[in-house]
Amino acid sequence: MIIVMKAEVTEEQIQHVVNTIHNAGLKENVSRGEERTIIGAIGDERVLDASSIEAMSGVEKVMAILAPYKLASRELQPENTIIKINGSNVKVGGNQIIIMAGPCAVENEEQIIQIAQGVKAAGADILRGGAFKPRTGPYNFNGLELEGLKMLAQAHEATGLPVITEVLSPDDVGLVAEYADILQIGARNMQNFALLKAVGQQKKPVMLKRGMASTIEEFLLAAEHILSHGNHNVILCERGIRTFETYTRNTVDINAVPALKDLTHLPVIVDPSHGTGMRKLVSRVAMGAIAAGADGVMLEVHTDPEKSWVDGAQTLSIQEFAKLMPNLQRVAEAVGRSVNNKSPEVFDILNYTLNNKSSYFNG
Amino acid sequence: MIIVMKAEVTEEQIQHVVNTIHNAGLKENVSRGEERTIIGAIGDERVLDASSIEAMSGVEKVMAILAPYKLASRELQPENTIIKINGSNVKVGGNQIIIMAGPCAVENEEQIIQIAQGVKAAGADILRGGAFKPRTGPYNFNGLELEGLKMLAQAHEATGLPVITEVLSPDDVGLVAEYADILQIGARNMQNFALLKAVGQQKKPVMLKRGMASTIEEFLLAAEHILSHGNHNVILCERGIRTFETYTRNTVDINAVPALKDLTHLPVIVDPSHGTGMRKLVSRVAMGAIAAGADGVMLEVHTDPEKSWVDGAQTLSIQEFAKLMPNLQRVAEAVGRSVNNKSPEVFDILNYTLNNKSSYFNG
Amino acid sequence: MIIVMKAEVTEEQIQHVVNTIHNAGLKENVSRGEERTIIGAIGDERVLDASSIEAMSGVEKVMAILAPYKLASRELQPENTIIKINGSNVKVGGNQIIIMAGPCAVENEEQIIQIAQGVKAAGADILRGGAFKPRTGPYNFNGLELEGLKMLAQAHEATGLPVITEVLSPDDVGLVAEYADILQIGARNMQNFALLKAVGQQKKPVMLKRGMASTIEEFLLAAEHILSHGNHNVILCERGIRTFETYTRNTVDINAVPALKDLTHLPVIVDPSHGTGMRKLVSRVAMGAIAAGADGVMLEVHTDPEKSWVDGAQTLSIQEFAKLMPNLQRVAEAVGRSVNNKSPEVFDILNYTLNNKSSYFNG
Amino acid sequence: MIIVMKAEVTEEQIQHVVNTIHNAGLKENVSRGEERTIIGAIGDERVLDASSIEAMSGVEKVMAILAPYKLASRELQPENTIIKINGSNVKVGGNQIIIMAGPCAVENEEQIIQIAQGVKAAGADILRGGAFKPRTGPYNFNGLELEGLKMLAQAHEATGLPVITEVLSPDDVGLVAEYADILQIGARNMQNFALLKAVGQQKKPVMLKRGMASTIEEFLLAAEHILSHGNHNVILCERGIRTFETYTRNTVDINAVPALKDLTHLPVIVDPSHGTGMRKLVSRVAMGAIAAGADGVMLEVHTDPEKSWVDGAQTLSIQEFAKLMPNLQRVAEAVGRSVNNKSPEVFDILNYTLNNKSSYFNG
Repeated sequence: MIIVMKAEVTEEQIQHVVNTIHNAGLKENVSRGEERTIIGAIGDERVLDASSIEAMSGVEKVMAILAPYKLASRELQPENTIIKINGSNVKVGGNQIIIMAGPCAVENEEQIIQIAQGVKAAGADILRGGAFKPRTGPYNFNGLELEGLKMLAQAHEATGLPVITEVLSPDDVGLVAEYADILQIGARNMQNFALLKAVGQQKKPVMLKRGMASTIEEFLLAAEHILSHGNHNVILCERGIRTFETYTRNTVDINAVPALKDLTHLPVIVDPSHGTGMRKLVSRVAMGAIAAGADGVMLEVHTDPEKSWVDGAQTLSIQEFAKLMPNLQRVAEAVGRSVNNKSPEVFDILNYTLNNKSSYFNG
Repeated sequence: MIIVMKAEVTEEQIQHVVNTIHNAGLKENVSRGEERTIIGAIGDERVLDASSIEAMSGVEKVMAILAPYKLASRELQPENTIIKINGSNVKVGGNQIIIMAGPCAVENEEQIIQIAQGVKAAGADILRGGAFKPRTGPYNFNGLELEGLKMLAQAHEATGLPVITEVLSPDDVGLVAEYADILQIGARNMQNFALLKAVGQQKKPVMLKRGMASTIEEFLLAAEHILSHGNHNVILCERGIRTFETYTRNTVDINAVPALKDLTHLPVIVDPSHGTGMRKLVSRVAMGAIAAGADGVMLEVHTDPEKSWVDGAQTLSIQEFAKLMPNLQRVAEAVGRSVNNKSPEVFDILNYTLNNKSSYFNG
Repeated sequence: MIIVMKAEVTEEQIQHVVNTIHNAGLKENVSRGEERTIIGAIGDERVLDASSIEAMSGVEKVMAILAPYKLASRELQPENTIIKINGSNVKVGGNQIIIMAGPCAVENEEQIIQIAQGVKAAGADILRGGAFKPRTGPYNFNGLELEGLKMLAQAHEATGLPVITEVLSPDDVGLVAEYADILQIGARNMQNFALLKAVGQQKKPVMLKRGMASTIEEFLLAAEHILSHGNHNVILCERGIRTFETYTRNTVDINAVPALKDLTHLPVIVDPSHGTGMRKLVSRVAMGAIAAGADGVMLEVHTDPEKSWVDGAQTLSIQEFAKLMPNLQRVAEAVGRSVNNKSPEVFDILNYTLNNKSSYFNG
Repeated sequence: MIIVMKAEVTEEQIQHVVNTIHNAGLKENVSRGEERTIIGAIGDERVLDASSIEAMSGVEKVMAILAPYKLASRELQPENTIIKINGSNVKVGGNQIIIMAGPCAVENEEQIIQIAQGVKAAGADILRGGAFKPRTGPYNFNGLELEGLKMLAQAHEATGLPVITEVLSPDDVGLVAEYADILQIGARNMQNFALLKAVGQQKKPVMLKRGMASTIEEFLLAAEHILSHGNHNVILCERGIRTFETYTRNTVDINAVPALKDLTHLPVIVDPSHGTGMRKLVSRVAMGAIAAGADGVMLEVHTDPEKSWVDGAQTLSIQEFAKLMPNLQRVAEAVGRSVNNKSPEVFDILNYTLNNKSSYFNG
């Protein structure tokens, strides 16, 4: 930690900071420049509280040297974390790009099974679908809850696809973990520390979405919360941040993809559906994410987006998803990776369409 | 709701939107312009899902007309909500400006009682202090929990000041409500809907802090969540939003103060401590907030800021707080309001200081 | 400057950085910690290029210690700069709060003179009005240019009010300086360095508006550009920054007011008209700005806002402005300052209104 | 245009809005709902001033239906604009991905020629290099100006590469256009309308960089300024926007790439050097940009980044650039496009390195 003293600092004030450093078991390095005296704290600075030191008289500012997270850092673990999903061959964080697809919300048994079959046929690895839905407005549909979880389990049985679904409250963690293969923490709950603790204390893998105004460092610290409770199977998901731009719902932080891959060993997924909020942009941003180094993408897919109860505007139809898959495959190969070995080109889009009367993607 | 169709829309697509409006029990108004056909949905548009309509073919964009919140709106209730705090004379939202003051975190019995006495002597109305602390890093002090609540109760007994403290988890709501007079929902939990529901289902007043990247509309929708569960005693707190500016910890959205007073009947408090993150800016921003129409301010105050376990850099000393109070009073009077009738000018700052060896505010 | 080396740094890489520091005429301080080696550069670090050093192998990050501006800093000049406006008694930056008022754009001779008389009667110190208008769209009215300047001069003659108006291009600086008493640099041009140079090389005072995404440091560096060319009469204007919030046009950064007053000796004005974009919020934010320490406010005022050619939605009527003035006075007095000695309470709003048929402010 | 009236609107206020619409030559559509009366203006709404209408009594808000730009819109011109660069085979906006590479600033003749030869050998299409440099601080190097332009011309002669360089002031447009093949407008000048006019009135192609806080709509309106003055050869460049994230210098708005390709016919380039500010992220973001649909990328490349006078931290070495090229080619092919037909794989990186003693990219 570097402590910059004010121009008019007194010797007593310097000594007070030095004593504080000593008392914390660290060593100091005092550098008296022409314009400023600077004090370095040598050792594991995480034992010092920057804000208290900033409150000391004579202190102008305090700058941290080390990242405040440890378990999540690539410095601690240079090799990638690869997370094997229970009861399946799916590995998140390995060479294969992982495709998570499904509706925003589980609506009924027929819907979720039909979508699960559709996305599986097109090459998806994991089925997504919300049973507990956080909704900005109190009068919106907020999920089928336990019934939704059971329907996801049925879709899993029908297709073999592992299931990812969101959990909103520490009390529901046990229940959701019974039915889901991956627990999702939504962007609004990224700093719900009671919830992070609860998912950190159980065994199922957790996908943590970045808060919409969270820095990369705060994102890794939220992951550190989960890791520090003993669960090392954490997947990170960049889902767009909030900026001044309003044409799109969020702004996908594409820089964060290689930045996270550099800073941490945890797998990184991108969610272009929430990241853009606009169906016409989803495919291209998904392709961009894979080229930029993402380990997978999460996509909202529905048999009939306009009948989707939630987030229809950003949801791909099964046909659009099926048309996207070969593109994702080509980009994955361009960066030395692969998608699901069942080639999506084999998928009979035309037949599917004739039977389902949805229109093709014309984008 | 206004639905703007694409330039190349077909009659069938228009009819499909019109049918959807009819099916929801609303009437339509179709306006065929030279460049665009526009469809208005007449009636309570909140029954329509904008995102589903945006997913329909031929639709370019959808624009809401009405605010999505109702109970929180001044249109529903023109007169101000005034919240009487249990077992005290304090009323939030009335003519008197309310001053909430105290440490970021409760540290021990002596500390909280000493601070409570100090801020009371200087004219504070309500004691703040955290027993459950949300912390960005997993290795930081996260509060004394139940012990902290008990110490707050002791400080309340010692001074008569009502107590506000944060609750982090639905499971803790009952416990916190036993000890606190106002339950605080922190910025990170503004959209923790399970928690909003829990505080909405009990009777104690709730102070809801604005999420650091939440719009005014989302803020009011979060309040609506609480109101819709039956608790109408909701206080709003602007605590700074996250912007590109990094010199300050957050950016106090001063525009939001008159905007909220215009849109809602709920009281509005400003927190300049978190809103600036810098002690030297707190006083002036507190004064600005009152001039802009806030119903009160919340301030972090400690007997010894540099020994504060949390947020020392933004914490005022008792002396600084005591010197600020007459300024707040003068500004309050300039806008036709008052602060606590016990005049803070009477407070014997010099004696206090001699006994406590803290330094004066030189700002 | 502090240079943090990577964990796996070599002795050669450290030496390379040390040599670079030596070659720039500075001294080094090398601190070898357990986790990182840190190198301090002692002396005037502004001679070093942080980005080049960051490009060196073995370097993890570079942190500046000193503010990059000098002439603008309060460290260089502790006392406030007070700017006397040519041919008038107006002093910007002194004890008196300065009120700049007038239309967004000059429209015709009658309009500008009528407005000038109105705002003067209500207590304004300086007349604002645009002759050269920067407009986001190419098809919008962009000012009367030279004709507008002449009308401003006529309004000045009719009322004695000094005039502030915007200059958009280095080529126009001489012309605008002939007619105006203060040259305004708009937010979009805050980093138009050719223009900053041109206004820095002439004598008239300059009011520099903060760019809508400019940090406080960049704002002061833009002022430094002007100061460094020899013109020390620079007024800073906080006019709202761009954030994610869309309810208001911009977000007034109230924190920036005391922050700037702390960092620089230059006067600070706030523009609540552009800062909010909404007439109903302007008055309260103006009051908040003065309480927070601003040296003045700039307000858009028009005899008939809905006939204003530009920015009508954020423009006060003369009557609204006249009603605001006593409020500004009361807040100014609460913070130990004053407004124009001609009491605005004396202003005969009723008569004015009867003759001008505008509606009263009902806010 | 849709005008939403307040709940308590009067018939007279409605009529006043209707008259204004009539007077502008448009037709009205009045829809009287239960909660709000809504007035649609039918016809080319660009003749109405939204802000004036918002200033009318009884008006709650005004919503635009049509994009405010015309010439830039894909609605006007469905096919892509392809810009042939003078005296070369380079076409921007066609099937081939365009690679612009070179130093941030021209430093001397030897440097610029050596870099030009290096990037050409590695497959670049266009040489970039700044002669006029906008610098945040007044004490930084701001370019060799005319001497720099001459050196760029020499580099062009030595390699045949077309040259792009920035112009800062309307007065310099003629001079820069003599030497450069593409004129660049920097992010800070995106709304310098005097400069947009000047480049719009000459013939050379213009690359317009997005302002760091400019929305997509404002970006297209700035392009419209240039187009409306007669120059239709405009290239758009996404170079990162300013957000709350500080780990990276800017946030590349990857969503903007497919959004712009959808909204406009103009070519879209991405600048990952400024967009990230970190060398280690540049390559992956460049690959992501091409996958997302960009027509090219602009990269800062230097023979010796740490000796670069400007922006060294985000500058690739020639070797890093040469290693990136085959990756860009593979991604381009994955999306059905190509890079420069001279295969960069042929480039003899090893020999180049031996002769130049720079280190390889280890990222």
